[in-house]
Amino acid sequence: MVKIERDILSKNDAFARDNRRAFASRGLFAVNVVSSPGSGKTTLLVKVIEALNGRMPLAVIEGDQQTSNDADRIRATGAPAIQINTGKGCHLDAHMVGHALETLAPESGAVLFIENVGNLVCPAAFDLGEARRVVVFSATEGEDKPLKYPDMFASADLMVLNKADLLPHLDFDLGRCLANALRINPNLQTLIVSAKTGEGIPAFAAWVEASAARHVAALMKS
Amino acid sequence: MVKIERDILSKNDAFARDNRRAFASRGLFAVNVVSSPGSGKTTLLVKVIEALNGRMPLAVIEGDQQTSNDADRIRATGAPAIQINTGKGCHLDAHMVGHALETLAPESGAVLFIENVGNLVCPAAFDLGEARRVVVFSATEGEDKPLKYPDMFASADLMVLNKADLLPHLDFDLGRCLANALRINPNLQTLIVSAKTGEGIPAFAAWVEASAARHVAALMKS
Repeated sequence: MVKIERDILSKNDAFARDNRRAFASRGLFAVNVVSSPGSGKTTLLVKVIEALNGRMPLAVIEGDQQTSNDADRIRATGAPAIQINTGKGCHLDAHMVGHALETLAPESGAVLFIENVGNLVCPAAFDLGEARRVVVFSATEGEDKPLKYPDMFASADLMVLNKADLLPHLDFDLGRCLANALRINPNLQTLIVSAKTGEGIPAFAAWVEASAARHVAALMKS
Repeated sequence: MVKIERDILSKNDAFARDNRRAFASRGLFAVNVVSSPGSGKTTLLVKVIEALNGRMPLAVIEGDQQTSNDADRIRATGAPAIQINTGKGCHLDAHMVGHALETLAPESGAVLFIENVGNLVCPAAFDLGEARRVVVFSATEGEDKPLKYPDMFASADLMVLNKADLLPHLDFDLGRCLANALRINPNLQTLIVSAKTGEGIPAFAAWVEASAARHVAALMKS
């Protein structure tokens, strides 16, 4: 069983390397967005796409077990989107993303958001070739989640705590949540947002834009 | 003039390399804490030292143009502290820190906080050999400071926004502040604290503890 897992992951890593090269050659900044189901990833993406629209090309790969609802919501913003249905699969893998990239063919210099299947466990192990990994985490999920799902928080670059508008109504200890997350990953960046009210969206948009600029500048140099 | 500055900085960088080696050989995790005057650096250090006391050895180098008030406040926590008075100097340099290190002689494995002179400009250019740089920034200073003092925010690893207890009474746009800081430095980590009420101190303490553990583990490997 362990050997099968190892083979799957090593195959995935090879596809992830191919994706990374493909992203680099097209000047794409790929962001793998992971979370539990229902954390508000799609709403968050809709809001950040609205904030970034016209500032840079944007494209989205949507992962879900079933339905193309999320891709439809993204397309309503004007950004091109493609839906991957994983069927029984509990995560996107690099091979699926490579195929979707060919079909989606994002404009050179685009930010490519990859919304993973809602799952705080399995996607952690699957590199998609992304430049950055963002874990979205709803305040309704409780401040212990970084400790209970450490692989996801350890592998992320940025934690976006969503649904901040609910904080006054929840028994959620924000300080302890941040402390838990930083204990797991002392390099983790954190932002507190409400995709519903728009609080924190300008900061998240600035992070995307500045990180993309830095990433593309580094690609140019290498 | 430019040449003199270059010579000063290149001499400083040589001393900073010596400090980095000295910190490494003693297993120290050095944190350079920079800010405007009056941002609350010393109160913040007192609070985080109280939170970390007994969990790891701690020591502090205090920089000020005059007085040993800050070192006295730190010593009241039980942590050893040494005061450097820079006189006319507007920043600590690596040579001063190297001397202070010899006198202070922190315990092996300690976290060494270096509180710089209150100045949001000059300390940015002077590497002290630290493992991490923390810029403390009071909400009373206004959300445009990262744009006006970009070198400091670009060179920092973590921004601690202090005096959060005053936010309800200030015309301070937190979202815009974070967006400004991330535009200058997309890799910047951020924490919102009130050294006065203790809000955010557990998260800052967790960041220090986990970053120190990671840094010392990396030293062991190399």
